[in-house]
Amino acid sequence: MKTRDRILHTSLQLFNEHGEPNVTTLQIADELDISPGNLYYHFKNKSEIIDELFTSFESHINNLLDVPEDIAGIEDQWLFLHLVFETIAQYRFIYQDLVNILSRYDKIQPRFKRILNRKLSASRNMCQSLVRQGILLANEDDLEALCQNMVLTITYWISFDKVRNVLNGQEMDISRGVYQVLAQIAPFLREEERRQLQMVSQAYIG
Amino acid sequence: MKTRDRILHTSLQLFNEHGEPNVTTLQIADELDISPGNLYYHFKNKSEIIDELFTSFESHINNLLDVPEDIAGIEDQWLFLHLVFETIAQYRFIYQDLVNILSRYDKIQPRFKRILNRKLSASRNMCQSLVRQGILLANEDDLEALCQNMVLTITYWISFDKVRNVLNGQEMDISRGVYQVLAQIAPFLREEERRQLQMVSQAYIG
Repeated sequence: MKTRDRILHTSLQLFNEHGEPNVTTLQIADELDISPGNLYYHFKNKSEIIDELFTSFESHINNLLDVPEDIAGIEDQWLFLHLVFETIAQYRFIYQDLVNILSRYDKIQPRFKRILNRKLSASRNMCQSLVRQGILLANEDDLEALCQNMVLTITYWISFDKVRNVLNGQEMDISRGVYQVLAQIAPFLREEERRQLQMVSQAYIG
Repeated sequence: MKTRDRILHTSLQLFNEHGEPNVTTLQIADELDISPGNLYYHFKNKSEIIDELFTSFESHINNLLDVPEDIAGIEDQWLFLHLVFETIAQYRFIYQDLVNILSRYDKIQPRFKRILNRKLSASRNMCQSLVRQGILLANEDDLEALCQNMVLTITYWISFDKVRNVLNGQEMDISRGVYQVLAQIAPFLREEERRQLQMVSQAYIG
């Protein structure tokens, strides 16, 4: 691996583990066993590292949020959620210190908000597709509140899980997060799909 | 106001506005126009200020979470949520940098988790009371997932609102947060209460 990529890789690990505000460029250089000068040769400051990592997160998540007009039932939504949770988990330092990072890095703020809006559109798209198929039964207001709640849970599940379990030494559990989002959709599903979802999701979270 | 109280008051304001990790004791002293020595006379370090503010938050929220065995319909739940959101808003610095603060202040971690558990119990209590009254129709699994989602929304609404609106200069909107929690309960309500809630909540969020 090139030094530049090693710096990015190690920064991501340290940020995810200790929180971005608690990690300095000196600690990153130290962890890599390179001189601070060598690090500064590749990145002038921490802000440039964050920017590069955010760009990489952005391209991953944007690919996922590019959902088709129509989905093939609730399984598609499930898979979508699982992949989104996985991507967020990979770059969880952004989400764990979200308000803090967006306050300090002006340039990231509008980009993150665009991602939030795309998450909302993707959720609306998928729910509306289920409505058209007669699988999901909800009026406009219900649908809007549901999608907002879905996006909030998608955005904060990993922090919530960290506060309750991971800080105590337990493993991160994204399946439970996916389950919690699906549980918000469940009451609006047609009886048949609702029962199916209940059975499968109990197995999924073990 | 005594100097000690003025320090606490100003710290709370600065933490809420700029985020606790971004505020130093020097800035607090500066804002109060007192010498750092004077501040250190009252509080040895920032950690002691945080501890005192957390204790005050803890006593406020614990009073609220002491809910009765039975509640008088959905209005009681509404009022409860509103008061909880108000208290969290007052001490929002804890919630905005939650993972960060809990990672750095070991002593607060178990105390915060106790509050989370009490939020969960209070939500369960109220929902079960509505189930007993025949107002809320849900099985055990539904109820558990619902209460977890309620607590997640209660915990992160203010951060979510900040990221989307407050950082852009808009006012904080806790009514919308209360509405989002109630929207999670709504699909489980009996037809009559559900319609009522829908009407009243549209007026409430304007």
